[in-house]
Amino acid sequence: MTVAIVGMGLIGGSLGMALRRAGLRGVGVGRNPSRLRRARALRACHDWTTDPAEAARAADVAVICTPVQTIPSLARRMAVANPQLVITDAGSTKAGVCRAARRPPLHGQFVGSHPIAGSEKKGIEAARHDLFRGAVCVLTPTARTSKDAVSTVSRLWRRVGMRVLTMTPEQHDQALAGTSHLPHALATALVHTLSKRSVRDLGAGSLRDMTRVASADPIQWTQIFMTNRRGILRRTAAFRAAHRRFETYLRSGNARALQAWFRGAR
Amino acid sequence: MTVAIVGMGLIGGSLGMALRRAGLRGVGVGRNPSRLRRARALRACHDWTTDPAEAARAADVAVICTPVQTIPSLARRMAVANPQLVITDAGSTKAGVCRAARRPPLHGQFVGSHPIAGSEKKGIEAARHDLFRGAVCVLTPTARTSKDAVSTVSRLWRRVGMRVLTMTPEQHDQALAGTSHLPHALATALVHTLSKRSVRDLGAGSLRDMTRVASADPIQWTQIFMTNRRGILRRTAAFRAAHRRFETYLRSGNARALQAWFRGAR
Repeated sequence: MTVAIVGMGLIGGSLGMALRRAGLRGVGVGRNPSRLRRARALRACHDWTTDPAEAARAADVAVICTPVQTIPSLARRMAVANPQLVITDAGSTKAGVCRAARRPPLHGQFVGSHPIAGSEKKGIEAARHDLFRGAVCVLTPTARTSKDAVSTVSRLWRRVGMRVLTMTPEQHDQALAGTSHLPHALATALVHTLSKRSVRDLGAGSLRDMTRVASADPIQWTQIFMTNRRGILRRTAAFRAAHRRFETYLRSGNARALQAWFRGAR
Repeated sequence: MTVAIVGMGLIGGSLGMALRRAGLRGVGVGRNPSRLRRARALRACHDWTTDPAEAARAADVAVICTPVQTIPSLARRMAVANPQLVITDAGSTKAGVCRAARRPPLHGQFVGSHPIAGSEKKGIEAARHDLFRGAVCVLTPTARTSKDAVSTVSRLWRRVGMRVLTMTPEQHDQALAGTSHLPHALATALVHTLSKRSVRDLGAGSLRDMTRVASADPIQWTQIFMTNRRGILRRTAAFRAAHRRFETYLRSGNARALQAWFRGAR
């Protein structure tokens, strides 16, 4: 089986390294030849091309690991070049992509994927063959998705050590708004309320742990947030309610309620 | 030099181990003889006693590593037993303790300390001789504090590898409200808005990093929050403003402002 990997950054590069170790053939796709050469030197792909259509014709499966807003158009170009191609992605939001994937020329061969693994670092130099090992990958097939495509994509992620879960695109986006997007927003807002000097001198390890994600790529995260606005706003409302409860306890000096609030979160 | 360490938990135990390696003599003080015996077995003290006055008479310096609300009365008892004793603590808030330490029988011999090191774990079993190495300790002397006491306490923390900073108790509490107390509240509120299952299945490493502190001891943290209410409420107000700005960008679909907001936090 030959896998076309579009976007040889942290995710695409790590996937290529892992697939190579699993004995699969990878074709790297990107816009920058020197970066693709570097990816091949790092054993993240066997071949490379800057033409997604060429890669599509050479592959059985394509994994699109580019920023989320570019996924639908790349998927369409590749489906035109090879109508038999099974196509998946690695985007962090799923409803928009899966809605776009219902329109021709895409038919049932697109399966939304979200491998929940990563880092605040980016680029091929941060790629690791074991990035996915032991982590969860969510598949988000819809009623129109081909069963064969789902099982091909599911096998692919399991080959690199992932546990595969299935849910609807909407369930995925709502859940990730809580476990990933809201935490990212909180870390960012926290950093905005602190001075550099106080963080450097007075921040314990727990502060560094909490704010590390705020150094992630702003363009990628803006795309993630813009494609899950409703889900995130619902979560921020729930968060505000929890936070307001805490402030009420503190303002009124209610130590008993505060202690119960801390205890309830353990 | 003999150091009495009151409270042989994570902080007191780690301090005892570090002082022992630095060639100083430690006397552990606590209420539970079997726990004190365990501390001695772990090389966290040379001797132990359940009587703070006895320890005070045997020591040159005392470090009170108990929950913050118990520090003033312990300091008073030890100062009565040995008026020459230099006394410090390891509490996470400083204004209340330092205010109480101005009253007789305490005179200038009390110096507030906050070694900024720790873990969400607690107890002597989590103690480590290198817990303080490379971390910052804040001293909060007041106008009445003896200069000799400050230099004795400063040397003590440097002996265990800490970088010593000095500020007023009020400056300390205001700064730590931002770098420690607010983050703790946010992590707790975040955990309250998530389901256990979604965290287990869909939480990436960054979520675990962000929520780890929420498993810390509720009693200790309630005391920290209750002794820094005003400072924390000021910070939560600043946080709410930053968070509201983010929600406005997201609600209005202002991708450009959102991206600048992410970029500004790097």
